[in-house]
Parts: sequence; C-alpha cells; structure tokens
Amino acid sequence: SSSETMASDYSSTPVKISTINPKVLECEYAVRGEIVTLAQKLQQHLDKNPGSHPFDEIVYCNIGNPQSLGQQPITFFREVLALCDHPAILDKSETQGLFSTDSIERAFQILDQIPGRATGAYSHSQGIKGLRDTIAAGIEARDGFPSDPNDIFLTDGASPAVHMMMQLLIRSENDGILCPIPQYPLYSASIALHGGTLVPYFLDEATGWGLRISELQNQLDAARSKGIDVRALVVINPGNPTGQVLSEGNQKEIVHFCKKENLVLLADEVYQENIYVSDKQFHSFKKVARSLGFGETDLSLVSFQSVSKGYYGECGKRGGYMEITGFSPEIRDQIYKVASVNLCSNISGQILASLVMSPPKVGDESYESYFAEKDAILSSLARRAKTLEDALNGLEGVTCNRAEGAMYLFPRIELPKKAIEAAKAVDTAPDAFYARLLLNATGIVVVPGSGFGQVPGTWHFRCTILPQEEKIPAIVNRLTEFHQGFMDEYR
Amino acid sequence: SSSETMASDYSSTPVKISTINPKVLECEYAVRGEIVTLAQKLQQHLDKNPGSHPFDEIVYCNIGNPQSLGQQPITFFREVLALCDHPAILDKSETQGLFSTDSIERAFQILDQIPGRATGAYSHSQGIKGLRDTIAAGIEARDGFPSDPNDIFLTDGASPAVHMMMQLLIRSENDGILCPIPQYPLYSASIALHGGTLVPYFLDEATGWGLRISELQNQLDAARSKGIDVRALVVINPGNPTGQVLSEGNQKEIVHFCKKENLVLLADEVYQENIYVSDKQFHSFKKVARSLGFGETDLSLVSFQSVSKGYYGECGKRGGYMEITGFSPEIRDQIYKVASVNLCSNISGQILASLVMSPPKVGDESYESYFAEKDAILSSLARRAKTLEDALNGLEGVTCNRAEGAMYLFPRIELPKKAIEAAKAVDTAPDAFYARLLLNATGIVVVPGSGFGQVPGTWHFRCTILPQEEKIPAIVNRLTEFHQGFMDEYR
Repeated sequence: SSSETMASDYSSTPVKISTINPKVLECEYAVRGEIVTLAQKLQQHLDKNPGSHPFDEIVYCNIGNPQSLGQQPITFFREVLALCDHPAILDKSETQGLFSTDSIERAFQILDQIPGRATGAYSHSQGIKGLRDTIAAGIEARDGFPSDPNDIFLTDGASPAVHMMMQLLIRSENDGILCPIPQYPLYSASIALHGGTLVPYFLDEATGWGLRISELQNQLDAARSKGIDVRALVVINPGNPTGQVLSEGNQKEIVHFCKKENLVLLADEVYQENIYVSDKQFHSFKKVARSLGFGETDLSLVSFQSVSKGYYGECGKRGGYMEITGFSPEIRDQIYKVASVNLCSNISGQILASLVMSPPKVGDESYESYFAEKDAILSSLARRAKTLEDALNGLEGVTCNRAEGAMYLFPRIELPKKAIEAAKAVDTAPDAFYARLLLNATGIVVVPGSGFGQVPGTWHFRCTILPQEEKIPAIVNRLTEFHQGFMDEYR
Repeated sequence: SSSETMASDYSSTPVKISTINPKVLECEYAVRGEIVTLAQKLQQHLDKNPGSHPFDEIVYCNIGNPQSLGQQPITFFREVLALCDHPAILDKSETQGLFSTDSIERAFQILDQIPGRATGAYSHSQGIKGLRDTIAAGIEARDGFPSDPNDIFLTDGASPAVHMMMQLLIRSENDGILCPIPQYPLYSASIALHGGTLVPYFLDEATGWGLRISELQNQLDAARSKGIDVRALVVINPGNPTGQVLSEGNQKEIVHFCKKENLVLLADEVYQENIYVSDKQFHSFKKVARSLGFGETDLSLVSFQSVSKGYYGECGKRGGYMEITGFSPEIRDQIYKVASVNLCSNISGQILASLVMSPPKVGDESYESYFAEKDAILSSLARRAKTLEDALNGLEGVTCNRAEGAMYLFPRIELPKKAIEAAKAVDTAPDAFYARLLLNATGIVVVPGSGFGQVPGTWHFRCTILPQEEKIPAIVNRLTEFHQGFMDEYR
C-alpha cells in the first residue's frame, strides 16, 4: 500500500515534481495547508494516546465549516432533501408523521419542476430551470430588481463558479485580477492555476478593513504601467478573512470604478446572510448597480452565492450559483459550453440552493421552527464573534477589528523581535510559528495571515467564530493563557 | 432581462470573444452541443404547439443519462441517501415502516464514519475516510488485489477527476495525451482547456473497435518525432462511444506498453458494470497490472469510476472517485493540494460512491429486491443494445459493431455523394447533416460522429441504448422509415 511505500523508490515512474504543471506547484491553499496537516497528525496521536497533550480535543478554527463543529442543519431543508432523494415515500401515510406538511408540499413542487421527476438525471448544464426560477425570484425579492433565471448557473459550491470565471478571463500571466489583500486564498489559488497575475489592493486595517478607491486606482495604474491587462476586480462582501461589511456608498464607488475602468466585477457574496452588527446591512452589488441606473449592458457583474455559509452552513452539500449579468450572448454561450463539459452540478445542492433563496414564509407550517433555528444560529454567532473579538483585543500586542459579518476574526499580532528571530531560526514565517505553537499548546487550529496576504511586516491569523457557544469560554482561556506564556517567553 | 437583450448592444462591456481565453474558445463538447440546443428548441416549440411535428416527443439518445429516460433508481441506495440527509428520523418508529432494516443499519454505519455525524460538513479533501475504506474494500473484492483508502480521491463525478489529472500533467501544447479516436469528448475538451495536445490513436472499426499496440506505437513515435512530450495514455474500457470491452490479453499489452514508454495510464472504467455479452468480462487495469507483477512503484495508473453509469445511473448525484497508484508522495501531495482548493466533493455523492462499491449482500434484507432491480436494468439494457444493433445493421449502408458494454452504439453510415454535397451546401459536416434531419423528422437526438472523432472520410453517429424498452420498437420504426426516405432522396 502506498502509505507503506512512503520511502519507496519511485524513480522509474514517469511523473516527477520537475515535470508537472508549474502552475499546480505554484498554487497554495493555506486553509487546508501545513497547519491543518499538523493538526490531523496531532488528532491521530491524541486518539491513540489520550492525555498525552495539554488538551483533549483539536478545535478546528481554520475553516468556515459550521456543521463540523456541531451546528445543526435547518430541519426544513433536510426534510425536503430527504424526500427528494427518496420520492417513493411521498405518498406513504407514515411520511405524514415524520415530515412537516410544507416540506412534503415543497418536495412535490420541486419534483414537478424536474423533467420526469428524475432527481438522478443530469440536469440542464446551468441547473434545473424550475429551481433557477425560484432562485431568480429569491434574488428579486432580496434586491427589488428583476433577476433572469437564464443568468443563473448552479454550481457545486461557489468555488467551481470562481474557477469558471478565471478560466474564461485569464489568457496568460499578462492578464491581471484585482484582489483584496487579505483575501480568501481560493482567489490566489485559482489565479495561479489559470496562470494569471494577482494584482493586490490592500484593505485598510486602521479603518476596519476599509476599501479605498484611491488604493484600487493606484494598484490598477501600477499594474497597467507594467503591461498587465487587468480584467476584473474581486470584492468579497462580507469580507473573508476580514469580516467587514461594505457600506452602500462604498459599493456605489466600486461600481463606478469598474464601469470607468472597464473591469468585470466579481462579487463574492457568499456571506450575505452573515451580518452581526445592527449598523450594517448587506446590499448585493446587483442591487447597488441597478439602483444607480446601470442596466444589463452597462456593467459586467458576477455574483457568487453558496449553500455552505449563511445560517444554513451546508458545506458538504456543495451547492451554489453565480448570477452573471452584462455578458453578451456570445460570451454566455462560452460559459455555457464550459459548464456543459462537466454536465451539471449535483441535484441535491441545486435543490438546497433553491431552498436557501426561498425558505419557509410566515404562515407555513415550518415557519416558526425554521425561524427559531435560524435566529438561534445567527444570534449565537453574533455573540461568539463579540466574545472572541473582545478576548483578542484584551491580549498584549493584539488588535482585532470587529467581525461585522462572515465567520472570521483576523487579529493582528505585534510579534516581539525575539519571536521573529526564533521563527527565522526554524525557517518559518513568524505568524505560522505563532500558529504552530498555539496548536501544540491548546489544540486550537488557526490559519497564519501569510496564507491570506497582509501588509509586509505585519502579522495576523484567521480564526473562525464557529466553535459551539458553550466552548467559547474555555477557548478564550486557553488562548489567553497561551498568549501570555508566549509573550513571557519572547517579549 | 438578458433574454430580451439578445439583440442589445454589449459594445461597452469589457469581455469580448476576442479577449477571452482562447483555450475556452477552442474547447468543444458535442454531447451537449449544437444538436442538443436544436432539440431543446424543438421541445419548446412542441410543448407550445402539440401536433406541429411528425412526432410527439423528443427522444434524447445523445447522452448517457438513464434516469432522464425513465430508469428508476435502486431503492436501497435512495433509502440510505434519504436517511443520511435527515438523520433525525433514524430513531423514529414510523421510519421502520418506510425504510428497509438494512438501509437503516447502513445509514447508522455511514453516520458513524463521519466525524460528528455531520453530513453537512466539508469532509477531508479526498473524501470521508470511512467511505474510502469501504470503496477500497470494494475494489479489493472486485480485483483480488489490495487497495489503499489513501489512494482514493472522491470527486463530483468522474469528469472533475479527469480534469485534475490533465491539470497536473499538461504544462503546454508540447505535452501530449494519447487518446482513442473515437473518444468521449470530455478528453478532447479537457486537453484543450488545459492547453495540451491530443495525440490520437485510432480504434480499428473492422475488428470491433480493436486497440492495436502497433497503432499506439506509431502514433506515439510520430508525436515524439514532432517534439511532443507524450505524458499519458487514455483508455476507455468499456468503450465510449464505441462500446467494445477489452480482452485481458489486450490489457496486458497496454500495461506493458505504458511501462515501456513511461506513460501514465489513465483508465476510464466508469462502465465497469455495463457488460452485455457473455463472452466478455470487465477487468480493471489495476488487477491486470498487479497480476502481471507490477507493484505500486512500477506503473502510474489512475482508475476513474462514477456513480452515473452502471445499473445505478445516478448522473444527477455527481459522485465518483479516482484511485491513483504509482505516484510518489510528493506528487500525491500536489494532487491533494489541488483537491483542497475545492474543499471536497458533495457528501451524498461520496456516500453513493461507497454504496455502489458495496451494495447489499446475500442475506441482507434488501438483497433480493436490490438484485431484482439491478438484473432487470442490466438485462433490459442488453436486449435494447441487441435490438438497436440489429436494426441499425439492417439499414442500407449502415454497419454497426455490437455494444459489448457501456451505453452506446456507434454505427457507421455510408453517406451517398449527393448527401455529402447537400451537407456542404449548408456548411455542415455530413454526419451532423444526417443527425439534424433525423431529429427534425423523428425527434430522435443522436450525436454526430465528428463530435467524437473518426477516420477521415467515414461518418458515424452515437446513439444511446437508454430509451425504455417498450419504446424501442417505435424508435426502430421511426429510424428505419427516416433512413429509407433519406436514402431515397440522396442515393
């Protein structure tokens, strides 16, 4: 077996590191990188040797994966999915006792939208038309502006949709994509895999990770002066890893900027349901653009949405969509063709995407339990965000902007000179050094800021707000104790 | 809405056909190409104007999508999926009345294999370990040789797995991949998207789409003499679109050839359960290689499997895996990294992949009904294949090899000169011309041979064997009548 042959001689096999696609080599994805591999090894060791570490479980704060940390799925959504998976039980009397009336109704509705009621068939390459109708209606209800089901491409989560757009836009390393720094490393990875150039723009930590148009302009101009053809601007709102929520005014400036500079606006809006502060609200870029009077042919805009985030957190279902507007029919045909090569996204994910954009409504049998589940999750997330933010700000040398939205905190650590030297001595980035010691001491897994990008000379880490609420005090204690010890050693 | 703006002026939007990635432009995927777009338009017209065409339904024989044509899913598989989607009902008394005992047991087993029983969480990037254990055990039972769960990468169907390998291997147009002609156009599309060169080897129609080593050698040598670095050999067994099943002796030659020529063997084995003739059997390339004494470090082999084919035909679930053997730990790390960028494949598809590799066994409550469902599907497919093959061979100027396996017939048509001229006059490939007239006259959708590749000057089409059995006589009649009329007109 291969695990036994780790030290085996592969010299006669054809594929070497020196002969693979260099774009693959270059790509990095820290969210599941070195620190997570180390955590998995610790986990195995801990399972076999309980009590051998100063903690009894690994707390995975590296990734926005709510259900892995105990968040329960929304009952209504799962009822509908189960019924669509096994429609043979829909007419059975026992089903009435097991499932809510409206979940049964919804399953019938969905099945009626699927040609031949075949949930096991490949669908239209963009996804089942009836589900896209539902999603478009949900977008319309959210924004107050029309949405066309033909603009929706259902995908296995948002990631494949991002790859599709990068694949379309990037011809060579002379094509650039403006990305926030810090950014979610899907973007840097996808740009690297498609052989393009990431053109960074820095979010301003001092103003709550503010997005300044002057910074966009400077970076765009600098890239263009180097001969880079900048094709698109990525905006992540609410921010990942930074948690800020853009103001509508700021979004308007961004839309004008894209229009003026002839850039495609790639809007990562997967955290649209994750807002934790009363002074901020989510506005889709499509709504902002339409409210400015920009119509279909005025702005090229792609909005990415996912079933993995929000209050639903259904990461394992791999559902999502992109809504593409402002692309000519010829370009849309090309996107359709690329979608067709992979046939379609998974039908359960498609169904779930329609459900999150059209949840139970007031008066539906499930509405109260649905709302209670949703509210409990979102209000708990808001409390956890605040508790962790306060705790981090209480640590020596740590400052942390508030998580207005999304699922993360991205604190900055002033690392002492001695710590930076100790990191260098073991050939490690200082933030990775901190994250590794934190993991070894507490079992808490965070991702070093270098995995997302940061202003050179500053150090950060990303920590999710997702551990269950009752565990947060212990996590705060372990983190605080570790940090004090760390500072005592390296101050 | 964008459909209303088809004639709108997109001249001020940034993305033009002339500025997109030329690899996207170049890629083609005929299985969902022009003929299918035409069929969808006909469908819409027919729905609105019943009786307006000489047929009352479109019969989609363009794609291996069994459930879209009425094939029912295997009950046991769907029971388990439904229970895993909504585990809250597992302990309810009504559930006993709705689900088989062993589906409930299996759901419990699977949930126990998922950390935190969280079917809504991202899994390990390769897929849930326990499910990979089950799949590895299934491979071992199939082959009689060990399989390592660490060699399994679960994917959203086989297509993304093929893309991952192409992405790994292709650096530039100087890298070549040996592909059969005719081939399933996923391969040509994927090679085009990754910017490599398809090195064709022709299957020999006269010997039942035979794969001759001399042809492989000639094409390999010719490509190398042009400076192409040939990295891998794709073999599709059972064949798509050609339906042949390789003999074990032929497979041994292929393994030796890959070893001798230092090629990765990419084995598309998604039709491994679809064998319709008693004189042929499926042998995995891994089994053949191991039986020759080739161990882990002797041959780089990737086997692709899917839940979309076989007797299960669960295309919409997007489940599949690749088993990679003969790659060094460093290369495996790179594959793992690329898998991680998309986080994981959908969990329902992962569960289904484990189920198809470990279906109910003799003695299980569901075994008899499971076996009856499976046997009914496979024996009916075998009858349909034979009926269609005979019908095609009865047509003037048509010869058709038997479908020993897979889901397709790929008949050759001797088109009369007059037909070829008529096709030229409308700037269409002669086989596409034939397919279009067939569709317009009968509603039957087939894919022109040019979408798969064929010996220049020969013409074919691919037709699935999937319409429900009771419809086959009518299809044969319509096809026969059309063909006679076509020949009468153009002979």
